[in-house]
Amino acid sequence: MIQVKEALAIVAENSSNMPVERIPVHKALGYILAETIYSPIAMPPFRQSAMDGYAIIHSGKHQYDIIGSSQAGDHSSLKLKENEAVRIFTGAFVPHNADTVVMQEHVMANENSILITIMPEQFANVRNKGEQIGKEDVVFDANTLITPAAIGFLACLGITEIPVYKKPKVAILVTGNELVKPGKILPKGKIYESNSVMLQAALQTIGIKKTKVYKVKDSLKATKKALNSILLKYDIVLISGGISVGDYDFVKEALLENEVKELFYKINQKPGKPMFFGSKNETLVFALPGNPASSLTNFYIYVYPAIKNKMGFSETHLQKLTRKLSEDITNTSGKTLFLKALYDETHVTVLDGQSSAMLNTFAIANSLLIVPNDTETLKKGDLVTLLPID
Amino acid sequence: MIQVKEALAIVAENSSNMPVERIPVHKALGYILAETIYSPIAMPPFRQSAMDGYAIIHSGKHQYDIIGSSQAGDHSSLKLKENEAVRIFTGAFVPHNADTVVMQEHVMANENSILITIMPEQFANVRNKGEQIGKEDVVFDANTLITPAAIGFLACLGITEIPVYKKPKVAILVTGNELVKPGKILPKGKIYESNSVMLQAALQTIGIKKTKVYKVKDSLKATKKALNSILLKYDIVLISGGISVGDYDFVKEALLENEVKELFYKINQKPGKPMFFGSKNETLVFALPGNPASSLTNFYIYVYPAIKNKMGFSETHLQKLTRKLSEDITNTSGKTLFLKALYDETHVTVLDGQSSAMLNTFAIANSLLIVPNDTETLKKGDLVTLLPID
Repeated sequence: MIQVKEALAIVAENSSNMPVERIPVHKALGYILAETIYSPIAMPPFRQSAMDGYAIIHSGKHQYDIIGSSQAGDHSSLKLKENEAVRIFTGAFVPHNADTVVMQEHVMANENSILITIMPEQFANVRNKGEQIGKEDVVFDANTLITPAAIGFLACLGITEIPVYKKPKVAILVTGNELVKPGKILPKGKIYESNSVMLQAALQTIGIKKTKVYKVKDSLKATKKALNSILLKYDIVLISGGISVGDYDFVKEALLENEVKELFYKINQKPGKPMFFGSKNETLVFALPGNPASSLTNFYIYVYPAIKNKMGFSETHLQKLTRKLSEDITNTSGKTLFLKALYDETHVTVLDGQSSAMLNTFAIANSLLIVPNDTETLKKGDLVTLLPID
Repeated sequence: MIQVKEALAIVAENSSNMPVERIPVHKALGYILAETIYSPIAMPPFRQSAMDGYAIIHSGKHQYDIIGSSQAGDHSSLKLKENEAVRIFTGAFVPHNADTVVMQEHVMANENSILITIMPEQFANVRNKGEQIGKEDVVFDANTLITPAAIGFLACLGITEIPVYKKPKVAILVTGNELVKPGKILPKGKIYESNSVMLQAALQTIGIKKTKVYKVKDSLKATKKALNSILLKYDIVLISGGISVGDYDFVKEALLENEVKELFYKINQKPGKPMFFGSKNETLVFALPGNPASSLTNFYIYVYPAIKNKMGFSETHLQKLTRKLSEDITNTSGKTLFLKALYDETHVTVLDGQSSAMLNTFAIANSLLIVPNDTETLKKGDLVTLLPID
């Protein structure tokens, strides 16, 4: 049995980056850029008006003849004389020798001429070519997270494809003779299988949309066979159930017979103690506890950072927040506790119903409060660390 | 021109809940429950062992004969005598007259009998029927957000479908003769169209996965015709561009001719002033500024809460955080400012490059810092409000 800290270190060490692939920019939300990107064009690509108004050569004169117009999308080789102006709109091309745009709110105009009422400074309201980014300049460094704004910026530079770290392919293998599919009648002694849909949803929250679920009966042969093909096809395998200490828990045996290298088994924590972590080639295997709340806890603590690591994130763990504790907590277990809790801007409150079988508490919690294994008492008002899961 | 606060109130008033639909539980992540849900079964559905061990009738005796076993999924009508034990596993059915489970770590066992080395209390390690929830008890109240844990809990009760507020169907209408599709060669005077992919990505972050994009040329006729069919088919219409004060901005006219009721036009803010908000029947129309950073700002400030409202969320706005300002800020504009900023646990720093055309700042920002229109100066160390967008 190892401590949480050691387990986290082992997971991190074994979660190497996924291979790089080029994907369309419009599908890249939430991916991490694998290489530095350079701009194929200057932005703006030409001198642009920042306002609706009139382009002029700044000279201090107040009166100008209107000799043409420049709408967004236009391009002309118009040349102005000193007393001439061009009607211009936001984003439009500024004629070559014009240097200033007067806002339309600062002129009096008729069809043919304008009179400037508030004189702008020279160069006002003109966006220079390349003001935002020059051709061949760095758009984003490698390891940048692709956000909506990043997608917009890449697209405005005409970039259509980018190299990113692939998302890992994840399989969920569910074991347990006691499990019945929701929607069917529940025979005596059986329970509904819920971990697969729960884990699929948890994976969705970090951008892993398609997860294949495999179900096997509690037998060494069936589990061994299923694992054999799954291990070849997936980057991450989550196994739900069959990993605690009972006689009928043969999942570990099936893993070892499939040459999955054991990296650790059992962690000094509550809930979530009976977990196996191993690897075969680049594929990571998490055999999670069958109890739903334990399973989801260990997903957030161990699987989440492994996936973030594989996807190239530099911050791989759930964010850590510090809050004041609303009540005393005692921990005589000698284990690290992950308690379902509710936090707000200042405080955190531990919820009732911490049993590892209970998911209803998890459903209303917005965080996991960490009580370290060597902390026996925490007092109301103490600053504690929590992991937000909302 | 109205203030930000008034604009927000008008958006909220006009964003009524979407109709209710029943959807499969495994597809319900991120939806809001439209009705209270009651449990069809008790959970656990029978008395379950919480441990791997031995079920007994608690009597203080230390020695027991093993008369059978109960694995997860089994059900038997075994009755124990006082000196008899049943081998039992976590989650398995506890024989009718047994009242206690001894952990296997607390016995010495051979094939036929056990000797208890650490005596448990009566009723230890037995989960009672309905301990987590009783049949017909409330599972979740209406308006609960469906999280991974909620999906797990619903599934473990055998529930397969739930009533939720539909997600709104969103269309994006892009106007602008100056716009060229990324990937094509950029003619002089033109720019790449980027707002549609940016807005699609922003919509994805709040669970609106499929958004249809329509493109029209800058003409009243084309825009009017496009709007006519779009308004019938969608719950929310985002229009990008064509809404500022220039002569060529005919979007507003096309909207009014399509009987879209104007609810406001122009907001006293920077960036993002030129925005139109209106409605036709239950469809909301946001004509967003064409400048990318303005467009994305107004998405977060106005479109985001409208969608959350429609989906039934009770907290509809971006979370508000309070942080200490890292430097002085002056606001002589008389407008509410939304500044791209970086915050950490304690402080917030305004980024360089706040121009409404610049998306690169947005791409590295993790928040929008709010400077109210009537605040002229903010000093280093002042507590300020920000909206996290990470």
